[in-house]
Amino acid sequence: MKQYLGIDMGASSFKYGIGNSRDGLLHFGTVRIHEKSLEAVRQNILALLEDVKDFHFEGVGLGTPGTIDRKTGKIFGVNPNLKFFTDMSPAELFPKDFPLPVLYDNDANLMALAESSYEPCRLCFGVTVGSGIGGGIIVDGKIFHGAGGFAAEIGHTIAVLDGIACNCGMQGCLETYASVDGIRRRLQKAQSPFADMDLPTIIAQSKSDAFVKKTVAEGETHLIQALANICNILNPDLIVLGGGAMDLGLYDIDKIREEVFLRISLAHRKELKIELARFGNRAGVMGGIILCERS
Amino acid sequence: MKQYLGIDMGASSFKYGIGNSRDGLLHFGTVRIHEKSLEAVRQNILALLEDVKDFHFEGVGLGTPGTIDRKTGKIFGVNPNLKFFTDMSPAELFPKDFPLPVLYDNDANLMALAESSYEPCRLCFGVTVGSGIGGGIIVDGKIFHGAGGFAAEIGHTIAVLDGIACNCGMQGCLETYASVDGIRRRLQKAQSPFADMDLPTIIAQSKSDAFVKKTVAEGETHLIQALANICNILNPDLIVLGGGAMDLGLYDIDKIREEVFLRISLAHRKELKIELARFGNRAGVMGGIILCERS
Repeated sequence: MKQYLGIDMGASSFKYGIGNSRDGLLHFGTVRIHEKSLEAVRQNILALLEDVKDFHFEGVGLGTPGTIDRKTGKIFGVNPNLKFFTDMSPAELFPKDFPLPVLYDNDANLMALAESSYEPCRLCFGVTVGSGIGGGIIVDGKIFHGAGGFAAEIGHTIAVLDGIACNCGMQGCLETYASVDGIRRRLQKAQSPFADMDLPTIIAQSKSDAFVKKTVAEGETHLIQALANICNILNPDLIVLGGGAMDLGLYDIDKIREEVFLRISLAHRKELKIELARFGNRAGVMGGIILCERS
Repeated sequence: MKQYLGIDMGASSFKYGIGNSRDGLLHFGTVRIHEKSLEAVRQNILALLEDVKDFHFEGVGLGTPGTIDRKTGKIFGVNPNLKFFTDMSPAELFPKDFPLPVLYDNDANLMALAESSYEPCRLCFGVTVGSGIGGGIIVDGKIFHGAGGFAAEIGHTIAVLDGIACNCGMQGCLETYASVDGIRRRLQKAQSPFADMDLPTIIAQSKSDAFVKKTVAEGETHLIQALANICNILNPDLIVLGGGAMDLGLYDIDKIREEVFLRISLAHRKELKIELARFGNRAGVMGGIILCERS
């Protein structure tokens, strides 16, 4: 079975790996971003290509933050965590003479692609909870993009009409309540002493400090409502929750499962599984590899 | 071009027509349901088949209320407006020796199929606002069903968490606030004198009576929020609003368009059109015909 290079471009580091979906990853590595510039990102790509030069692989599958316009193939609009990286094709990060095909998609779409490939399902909705909230829809093994490439944006569904201002320019988006940055901003606004602590500390405080507890619980409730709505609209048979905040236990998967099931009809519950992501921080890399395999 | 028989099963009457998508309807008729029983419905089918017996057609496309389990082909769960009509295939309404193929789908799905076929689009979301609120998703000319057949249930997305009890057994569903029955129930609960009036009277009162005005405006706002969320999840390039209440002007299409656009990102606005349905009460019949054409 052929090998591919999967790359997951994060805001602070790139993860990458060589492998395929049958044998897993032969090699896995990380390069940190030292500077938020296009030139630095291109240097990172060169560095990781150098690291894997002794492996044979047939193509590259790249996951990127930001939304990709399927008509132009370019990142569209503001890319909040990598602001310089917009209005260009992610494939342009590679040297002009790079000899292999470079496929790419949104990072949350590739996470969903990877997670859906290890659990029998017809329609998988994948969610990543981290500094923001991303989503991906997989239908019969393929990424579902909607009309222009901008589907699955669960983080920007409206949790509270005319609510808190979001990075995206809109108001009341789910991620302003339920993402790590959203929770942090709400703690800051209330001058909570825990606002600037790291996520494990915030999670620990959510067991004891009443305000932190309430803020996290509200985020969880908004996420539950958004997932129930996803069930009504898409009728998934698999929902996978991943991302750094799920890995660390910000929200309780058993509670999410129970509460979503209470809020959807028997028809929608019938075949639905709600699970934690299995691949942890390697899902994006594996998703890039599977994107190549299925192209 | 071949002709087909389209049938739209409503809760009080069946509409039907012979035709195709190129030439339109050669014949259109209605049979009222005199009794809510399976036997009466079967009699209606026989009556309309008798009416069209001199036409040549190659198959039947039937739109039904209720949700259809794609695995069994049967109506699944409670069918609120035709309670006796569940746990059976809609094709079983036809005589055992009926010689032509009978295709069927949910009525809102067929409305969306018809409306999407007359406007260039890749992803159409159709909404019917009437006694309930139904939805249909069309992707590249085909009905999108989700994993089990229960997708596009916009009427049962949660508008208000732990809100008003819905016919479906859940709470706070969009249709408890924004459908005609929902608005009527809210007027009843507040002992408004207009609760039992017909829809045109309620619409007229919504211009002058403060409480009716507020109730209708709240319904409209919840519908706007649900449509903005649909844009984030599905990225449609066409949203079509139809059904009896839209035909009569319960909600203002220009206001809906403007407010949805204000609440979604540039990426989602980019190619989106939000329109009133064109086919009025014949959309279901035409959708049944197009279902046959595309099978």
